[in-house]
Amino acid sequence: MSSNSFGNIFKITTWGESHGKAIGVVIDGCPAGLNITDEEINYLLSLRAPGRSSYTSPRKETDRAQILSGVFRGKTTGAPISIIVYNEDHDSSKYEGIKNILRPGHANYTYLEKYGIFDYRGGGRSSARNTVSIVAAGAVAKKFLAHNNINIVAYLKQVNDVIVKNKIKDLKTLSEETKKSAVFCPEEKSSLEIMALIEAIKEEKDSLGGIVEFIAEGVPVGLGDPFFEKIEANLAKAMLSIPASKGFEIGDGFDCVHTRGSENNDIFVVENDKIKTNTNHAGGVLGGISSGMPITGRVVFKPTPSIEKKQKSIDTEKNNVELSLPKGSRHDPCVAIRAVPIVESMAALVLADCLLLKRSSKL
Amino acid sequence: MSSNSFGNIFKITTWGESHGKAIGVVIDGCPAGLNITDEEINYLLSLRAPGRSSYTSPRKETDRAQILSGVFRGKTTGAPISIIVYNEDHDSSKYEGIKNILRPGHANYTYLEKYGIFDYRGGGRSSARNTVSIVAAGAVAKKFLAHNNINIVAYLKQVNDVIVKNKIKDLKTLSEETKKSAVFCPEEKSSLEIMALIEAIKEEKDSLGGIVEFIAEGVPVGLGDPFFEKIEANLAKAMLSIPASKGFEIGDGFDCVHTRGSENNDIFVVENDKIKTNTNHAGGVLGGISSGMPITGRVVFKPTPSIEKKQKSIDTEKNNVELSLPKGSRHDPCVAIRAVPIVESMAALVLADCLLLKRSSKL
Amino acid sequence: MSSNSFGNIFKITTWGESHGKAIGVVIDGCPAGLNITDEEINYLLSLRAPGRSSYTSPRKETDRAQILSGVFRGKTTGAPISIIVYNEDHDSSKYEGIKNILRPGHANYTYLEKYGIFDYRGGGRSSARNTVSIVAAGAVAKKFLAHNNINIVAYLKQVNDVIVKNKIKDLKTLSEETKKSAVFCPEEKSSLEIMALIEAIKEEKDSLGGIVEFIAEGVPVGLGDPFFEKIEANLAKAMLSIPASKGFEIGDGFDCVHTRGSENNDIFVVENDKIKTNTNHAGGVLGGISSGMPITGRVVFKPTPSIEKKQKSIDTEKNNVELSLPKGSRHDPCVAIRAVPIVESMAALVLADCLLLKRSSKL
Amino acid sequence: MSSNSFGNIFKITTWGESHGKAIGVVIDGCPAGLNITDEEINYLLSLRAPGRSSYTSPRKETDRAQILSGVFRGKTTGAPISIIVYNEDHDSSKYEGIKNILRPGHANYTYLEKYGIFDYRGGGRSSARNTVSIVAAGAVAKKFLAHNNINIVAYLKQVNDVIVKNKIKDLKTLSEETKKSAVFCPEEKSSLEIMALIEAIKEEKDSLGGIVEFIAEGVPVGLGDPFFEKIEANLAKAMLSIPASKGFEIGDGFDCVHTRGSENNDIFVVENDKIKTNTNHAGGVLGGISSGMPITGRVVFKPTPSIEKKQKSIDTEKNNVELSLPKGSRHDPCVAIRAVPIVESMAALVLADCLLLKRSSKL
Repeated sequence: MSSNSFGNIFKITTWGESHGKAIGVVIDGCPAGLNITDEEINYLLSLRAPGRSSYTSPRKETDRAQILSGVFRGKTTGAPISIIVYNEDHDSSKYEGIKNILRPGHANYTYLEKYGIFDYRGGGRSSARNTVSIVAAGAVAKKFLAHNNINIVAYLKQVNDVIVKNKIKDLKTLSEETKKSAVFCPEEKSSLEIMALIEAIKEEKDSLGGIVEFIAEGVPVGLGDPFFEKIEANLAKAMLSIPASKGFEIGDGFDCVHTRGSENNDIFVVENDKIKTNTNHAGGVLGGISSGMPITGRVVFKPTPSIEKKQKSIDTEKNNVELSLPKGSRHDPCVAIRAVPIVESMAALVLADCLLLKRSSKL
Repeated sequence: MSSNSFGNIFKITTWGESHGKAIGVVIDGCPAGLNITDEEINYLLSLRAPGRSSYTSPRKETDRAQILSGVFRGKTTGAPISIIVYNEDHDSSKYEGIKNILRPGHANYTYLEKYGIFDYRGGGRSSARNTVSIVAAGAVAKKFLAHNNINIVAYLKQVNDVIVKNKIKDLKTLSEETKKSAVFCPEEKSSLEIMALIEAIKEEKDSLGGIVEFIAEGVPVGLGDPFFEKIEANLAKAMLSIPASKGFEIGDGFDCVHTRGSENNDIFVVENDKIKTNTNHAGGVLGGISSGMPITGRVVFKPTPSIEKKQKSIDTEKNNVELSLPKGSRHDPCVAIRAVPIVESMAALVLADCLLLKRSSKL
Repeated sequence: MSSNSFGNIFKITTWGESHGKAIGVVIDGCPAGLNITDEEINYLLSLRAPGRSSYTSPRKETDRAQILSGVFRGKTTGAPISIIVYNEDHDSSKYEGIKNILRPGHANYTYLEKYGIFDYRGGGRSSARNTVSIVAAGAVAKKFLAHNNINIVAYLKQVNDVIVKNKIKDLKTLSEETKKSAVFCPEEKSSLEIMALIEAIKEEKDSLGGIVEFIAEGVPVGLGDPFFEKIEANLAKAMLSIPASKGFEIGDGFDCVHTRGSENNDIFVVENDKIKTNTNHAGGVLGGISSGMPITGRVVFKPTPSIEKKQKSIDTEKNNVELSLPKGSRHDPCVAIRAVPIVESMAALVLADCLLLKRSSKL
Repeated sequence: MSSNSFGNIFKITTWGESHGKAIGVVIDGCPAGLNITDEEINYLLSLRAPGRSSYTSPRKETDRAQILSGVFRGKTTGAPISIIVYNEDHDSSKYEGIKNILRPGHANYTYLEKYGIFDYRGGGRSSARNTVSIVAAGAVAKKFLAHNNINIVAYLKQVNDVIVKNKIKDLKTLSEETKKSAVFCPEEKSSLEIMALIEAIKEEKDSLGGIVEFIAEGVPVGLGDPFFEKIEANLAKAMLSIPASKGFEIGDGFDCVHTRGSENNDIFVVENDKIKTNTNHAGGVLGGISSGMPITGRVVFKPTPSIEKKQKSIDTEKNNVELSLPKGSRHDPCVAIRAVPIVESMAALVLADCLLLKRSSKL
């Protein structure tokens, strides 16, 4: 057990605070022989970075990840891969003024009660800044999966009532369209509508929630270990570990409540001599094990709790106070947007681990 | 890592198959000194058992759990607690006829591909029968939680369009009303409507999905370890480990997509000199750590995949076939009903573990 | 983490007390497709059983292990393998008289202090009786290793000044000679001398220590994961987990203190086009990874602390007392003898796990 | 499971290579509120550093550890503590000439076979250089132990036939005398004799083995979890994880083979109303749990395999070759000397973890 680690064989250990010296991750268990470079990691980090458009936090992060170990002449050696991203100098002084105020929707109260101490500068360990570790490790996992012909794409599925409905058949196109959109929404019309919603909510100094969907293709039959290492159980844990996430569903998820067995069962058929199902309500898993169909799931993110609007609260001395965020503390109007590459990375970490566990299933 | 284990300190290891000799669980890490008896475990198992009413499987299971170790003169000793439930003799011969057929919505195809072998008698390891282990271990976890004034109640929240809407303020009443209902639904009107839905679907030889909600009260501030042992992340993993579950949400969950930050943030207030929030959209967690408010979540279950209706499928030789379940293979028309005590047990296992982990948070 | 579990992928969880209802083990992670029967397990248990000769405890144990899960039609299915051995009815009443006495060399004092409760009947969880679980699980591990052409033999190497010195070249012969000896000592002269020592110590109502050696042949190059899953580190942990063990060494072990590098280094040579070393001071490991040479190590066991001789002690109330073991509490004059199959099993568990971990070392 | 991690609650993850960019460790699970500084870590690193005297490697390492996370205003926050030590620029080119030679006593052959790739610069991940991580983490563990009045001292016990025999009663004096000695040997006469041995072996371009002993005082009764988290089992694993270690013993260890039960049993007595034993053959553990007596153990280290003397070997193409170490590759004539602070750190890591696990033993 280790609160900041995830995975069984392909295992990551994360560390860092928002305004600390650096943030990083150690990947242990990545097989030897994989080609990986700083650049590949930094490309994915650039997608996660704020300031990519006016729809995310205007904060500038010019994160540069550096591989410190485990890679020799461009190839993994089987040794732990340590990746570091130095934080830029932050002016943490502005947080002094609100350090004793319980921030609604925030972790400062619970951290203080649990640990008796809270690194309040920029949210410390509870900050979404720490997902830098996830995306860096995810880059390595994605490379390993690509070597095994598995690809994953995540995108913004819904904000308020705007929902992406059309299925894009081809994963490559989906990926391209998603990256084209400033809000990672692959459907042009929905993308524009979401941008409009976000412009409006920014005006009101408020924030919005959203849903991110992911699709993994090329997943072989047989990944996932019942009873407790089911593929959907590990995906659920991974996704609910992302700050601000409040729910996860696989396949048709909560919609199952409205269907009956005869509709929801995916029927097995043979196509080009291969076994598949004619629908995919299950989202690519049966009994916790991948079925060979695409693995699909969704994660919901709450509206950013840090809003510019004034809020009532109390302080640690139980006095009533009014909370105004310090000037210059710039926040995302909708964290779901920047969660897109994080969801993709989490899915990659789960699948990479399953892929290695699979090697022990038979004699 | 161990696929059939769950938990960090309060850790369970489960084993058994539907038609094997027995099913069991080993609990390691339960503190010494807890009073626990076979009877307490068997009472909870009786709630899970099929045949409790006409709304669940008519199968008879007279499960009797026996504690084999770890308890001396009625008290836990700190040694592993082994609990066993012998399976009654089953006639497994009827499964011979369908053993080569890929069953829609079932795990036999994925197990066969993964392991090269499948104990097809009654679903083997993939059977929901294995949740007997969860409920038995959950009984011990619940006893430990009760010792710490933490109580959990789960109930059937929704089937199709029938939703329990009224909040029952008092957990004790909720528990009583839930147990009174043949379908574990605490609201009389909804309970009757759900029964009617189930009567109808049985006529059609089909099945229905459902949603189970749980509420944990008395949870102190400070349970849950960021980054990856967040309380909601472990709940998500636990719930998605239950057979047929397809999604989990905490607090307002997926509804967050329709709200804004200023609505969704729970405002801190002081009541009787204690800190609480005036709403509980978060479901009792902030930053992965319990806030002292009730922990609430929901799990969705797909319609039972085993239906009496004839279904098209293929066999392992890729021939088209028609699947008729063997006579006497009696299934639940709605697995969500019997999932109620399982969800309650899973939540208990997560909280018991968090409670012990909490002991290491400070010097 | 789980105190009663061992292994990473091939993982066991043990449970039971000396005078409890049963003792058992759950093996999780054994690959599917392995042939294994109750008989194979019971054969190894018979070697561990007391009463095999006059040189071990006269207690009669007619242990019969039963596989309860994870095996279908003689083959493992990939599901957890639960093995149970019921304890015979013991008369535990005789322990009542000494239950408050701190027993020299025993765990009752430390258990009481740690847990506040102690199942004193026959030593409870601290009893060597619990190694039944190890031997049962070891039988499965040995079968898996044999499938991979790896074989392990342990034997009694030393008691007092009697040391087995001749190396027996052939593992099969070593195994046969060892089993022929009532004290598991493969050299006839030493075997007789050790028996004489034990006869004498029994007369004196005292006990002796001993050293057990093991040799594993057929181990491929590449097992063991630096830094903390080194093969010798896991062997050390396994061996020091055996009750009454006080030390472990690999290869030349403590004798290294008397040699110099140029003597101790094993020189690489090519023989029949295969790489090997001309000596094996290292005991088959280099940098924590198996070198392809036989893996050899030794474990020392202290003299049985339970002796018939009267001993001074105190009771839980800190009064001076004299301890006389209850009549009929029969103990081994030298636990090292019966430790032989346990050491063999522990080595098998470590190697089986390493073998599976190895599958993830390369792309 | 994670090959480069150790511990259950107080858990470390290590990374780095000898000639890589940096070496580091992440400590997860250290309770919040502990005062710790870079300086405290660097002081212990200075003891481990080569070049401290002419009896260790003349290599210069001016290691400076830096805490990158988990500490806020001098106190741990409960978040993971990341510690980094940058490697100085090394000229790795000299290793090019021997990169295809199998080095006797070294890990390059086994690494190459296991991973298909080997970072041969300075030994890569297999280098003793990586124990920097252990000592850095050990510094934090020692601070936590000191807060709980537990102190550990290790010292050089034996080289060849020179053995430290006098017991130094007082741990503080032992610590001071040890640090005074250039070879960490607290007895002046033995210290001088060992220095003479080392001077002589350096002349011969050869190396020597040695034994390191540790003593932990102030350990409360009740640390260590049977069956597999026994305190001696975890110490054994920790010690055999140190490069070049070949054996571990607790208490009287291998000497037990020469004693009988009535001699080896430590008798319980009451002194100043406290329970203790009048001898400590057991080394402070009974049944895997600490007894309150000092915990003592020994670790043997083989002679450094890297020697200047020419050695026969083969290369990866199986050609016979002669190995001469590259000029400037400076090695310790006796690794046991510099192992002293490492053994101390490993013991601290084990005890810190046990101390936290202990918190869950009772209700």
